[in-house]
Amino acid sequence: MNYKMSILIRTDLKMGRGKMVAQGAHAAVGAVLESIKRNPEWLEQWETAGAAKIALRVDSIEELMQMVQKARSLGMTSFIVTDMGLTQVEPGTVTAAAIGPAPENLVDQVTGKLRLL
Amino acid sequence: MNYKMSILIRTDLKMGRGKMVAQGAHAAVGAVLESIKRNPEWLEQWETAGAAKIALRVDSIEELMQMVQKARSLGMTSFIVTDMGLTQVEPGTVTAAAIGPAPENLVDQVTGKLRLL
Repeated sequence: MNYKMSILIRTDLKMGRGKMVAQGAHAAVGAVLESIKRNPEWLEQWETAGAAKIALRVDSIEELMQMVQKARSLGMTSFIVTDMGLTQVEPGTVTAAAIGPAPENLVDQVTGKLRLL
Repeated sequence: MNYKMSILIRTDLKMGRGKMVAQGAHAAVGAVLESIKRNPEWLEQWETAGAAKIALRVDSIEELMQMVQKARSLGMTSFIVTDMGLTQVEPGTVTAAAIGPAPENLVDQVTGKLRLL
């Protein structure tokens, strides 16, 4: 079975690519640390198989939250990044999220129709 | 004391922003997992203080490797991302690296002069 993590980045905010990289990294690290506590088996399988990640775009906070809620309802780890707003965005802005690591078919049930970032 | 992680992305390769986000996330996750084994104290301090991350540009493999070597010589964790080359770059290409988490003044000794991504 293949495992992966989806990284969702909001494209409706005025974030440059450096900001996107930092926010995406924050999401991925958060999901990994959460997985250590909640789902270490999937984390280990994912790491062993190369730790596949894909960066996808969401166009609104609503779309991002829908994805996260669906992931949680399917038993997957997720992590939402809320930025402190020191640069580029307002304080408290949700900028990114990560879903997984989890079996690929499960992740695709949630994020399979999103476009590549 | 402040703590941070620097994420270095090569800009001399033909990577789109989605690829950069995925490679940066890979670097950050790798450095965190390595820190759990080698330097859990700095990792915990960094997390507690908000897990600051900054995305920086390097223009060549030589510049990236110099940064990583200097970081290691100063006792910091680092992680080099070598891409499988399924998309956008050749197999085995070093695309990104992470340095830290570590005390900010130590990280800045290595990456303080790099430009923002």
